[in-house]
Amino acid sequence: MVFFTTLDMLGTAAFAISGVLVAMEKRLDLFGVVIVAAVTAIGGGTLRDLLIGDVPVRWMADPRYLYLILATAAFAVLFQSRLRYLRRSLFLFDTLGIGLYTLVGIEKGLATGLSPLICVVLGTMTACFGGVIRDILCNEIPVIFRKEIYATACIAGGALYFVLLGAGLPEAYAYLAGIGAVILIRLLAVRFKIALPDIYRKRI
Amino acid sequence: MVFFTTLDMLGTAAFAISGVLVAMEKRLDLFGVVIVAAVTAIGGGTLRDLLIGDVPVRWMADPRYLYLILATAAFAVLFQSRLRYLRRSLFLFDTLGIGLYTLVGIEKGLATGLSPLICVVLGTMTACFGGVIRDILCNEIPVIFRKEIYATACIAGGALYFVLLGAGLPEAYAYLAGIGAVILIRLLAVRFKIALPDIYRKRI
Amino acid sequence: MVFFTTLDMLGTAAFAISGVLVAMEKRLDLFGVVIVAAVTAIGGGTLRDLLIGDVPVRWMADPRYLYLILATAAFAVLFQSRLRYLRRSLFLFDTLGIGLYTLVGIEKGLATGLSPLICVVLGTMTACFGGVIRDILCNEIPVIFRKEIYATACIAGGALYFVLLGAGLPEAYAYLAGIGAVILIRLLAVRFKIALPDIYRKRI
Repeated sequence: MVFFTTLDMLGTAAFAISGVLVAMEKRLDLFGVVIVAAVTAIGGGTLRDLLIGDVPVRWMADPRYLYLILATAAFAVLFQSRLRYLRRSLFLFDTLGIGLYTLVGIEKGLATGLSPLICVVLGTMTACFGGVIRDILCNEIPVIFRKEIYATACIAGGALYFVLLGAGLPEAYAYLAGIGAVILIRLLAVRFKIALPDIYRKRI
Repeated sequence: MVFFTTLDMLGTAAFAISGVLVAMEKRLDLFGVVIVAAVTAIGGGTLRDLLIGDVPVRWMADPRYLYLILATAAFAVLFQSRLRYLRRSLFLFDTLGIGLYTLVGIEKGLATGLSPLICVVLGTMTACFGGVIRDILCNEIPVIFRKEIYATACIAGGALYFVLLGAGLPEAYAYLAGIGAVILIRLLAVRFKIALPDIYRKRI
Repeated sequence: MVFFTTLDMLGTAAFAISGVLVAMEKRLDLFGVVIVAAVTAIGGGTLRDLLIGDVPVRWMADPRYLYLILATAAFAVLFQSRLRYLRRSLFLFDTLGIGLYTLVGIEKGLATGLSPLICVVLGTMTACFGGVIRDILCNEIPVIFRKEIYATACIAGGALYFVLLGAGLPEAYAYLAGIGAVILIRLLAVRFKIALPDIYRKRI
């Protein structure tokens, strides 16, 4: 449990900081920066909870998320000129975050009685849609629609979880393997600059 | 039933393709194209279900929508250079779609005990708001806020349904007449380039 | 009760007109103008109700909001060239509106059993997020993320309400003091051009 709580906190903080960075690039004021940080950190889970009807949504029942986000945003604003030294750590925490949140979303889908396909969609949404809402609030086309393997890693890790479950692996192992797969695919994709196949070549 | 299922599938496919087209114009990657296709196809119904509290929303309970959307998006990406030959069919399917979805939304509103005015709003939202979310994700002002008779056709068809019900027409006839009116108004508006009255003339 | 109903109507109308103004600046058509007016007026409360699971949301149960919005939008479009003479009144009504809606949102949060922090978030959301959705639909970065004391006034007024409650003040007085504080802070901020502290100075 401590392990997962730590992952969750690191992931939430990394998401909040990515929100601060995008918001500051757009020169938002302090309120805007905090809102965009919060939306990035909890937007995906909020959308998931709304769609399955699990309300009041999670961050309303447990205010610690908001405190963590406020503290992280304050830290990021205060040390804005030093954040680049943390770039590698932030990338790592973000990657841990999407791994964890994908599987958290899948578990919630299963608990709601949804099919594996929909569970994978829910998990990917949990991990990725905070960033989508962040970009929309900042008047950008969501970056995960344009570049890099990001959501695709979540989909693959989620699918692996169900494959392993189907193969008879105990739930806890499949869970960890799913998280690990998301993280590994994301790391490899960034390391080797792997992207989705280009769909814009002419096919005549 | 087969008739409505066919309409529903054609409409969903047409909406998904319109999502693919807008997404490809923005040069999104494969993941982005698929998400925008899905949101266009199911976004309106999802918003309706959230607002009336009918969760988990419909496409989560019935994964066939997602399969249809994935297949349609794959088709549209593969045959992107030929899609213009389908322009007339796509326009027709889209128009059938908004006719059907307007009445589907109205029925759901009635089943929830809502007043006629709110039912017409719900129906129009079902038919039109997938396109609104599509445009927001692609960083455009929604096209239905700017041009042509589109949502207005849904409002008129929905209103006609309640007028006919009030006049004592059997429900099934009013339903079909409502769908027909949406389709007819949309076709006439496009054929004769009818637009909403211009609100920007000076009134001094 | 008459007092609060009047405040509510003035606030709703002021929000709707602010939607009309932004929409007309973007040259939306009549349908777009009406939708943006409606979203500005009821978007914040809708988001709040979705997050706490109070559905069907309020404007669906009470159609008078839609009638008021339609009438206001029609008025604003017809008298568009005269609206600048109303600028001061509109600003005042808008300010009354955010004061009232902040406390309405807080009360709803308390009735749902949420903690004070989350209640203040809900209240601020009720007052301010209609304008956020308005700006997103019009393809702008939300103005309250960029300029002026607006949401901050709601947060301060909401916090004051809980401080006064904690100090043993009767609920009705704390409620009115909360509304008053929002209004006063907003008026003073605009009058004396007070903004949030600039977070963009270099800290080396």
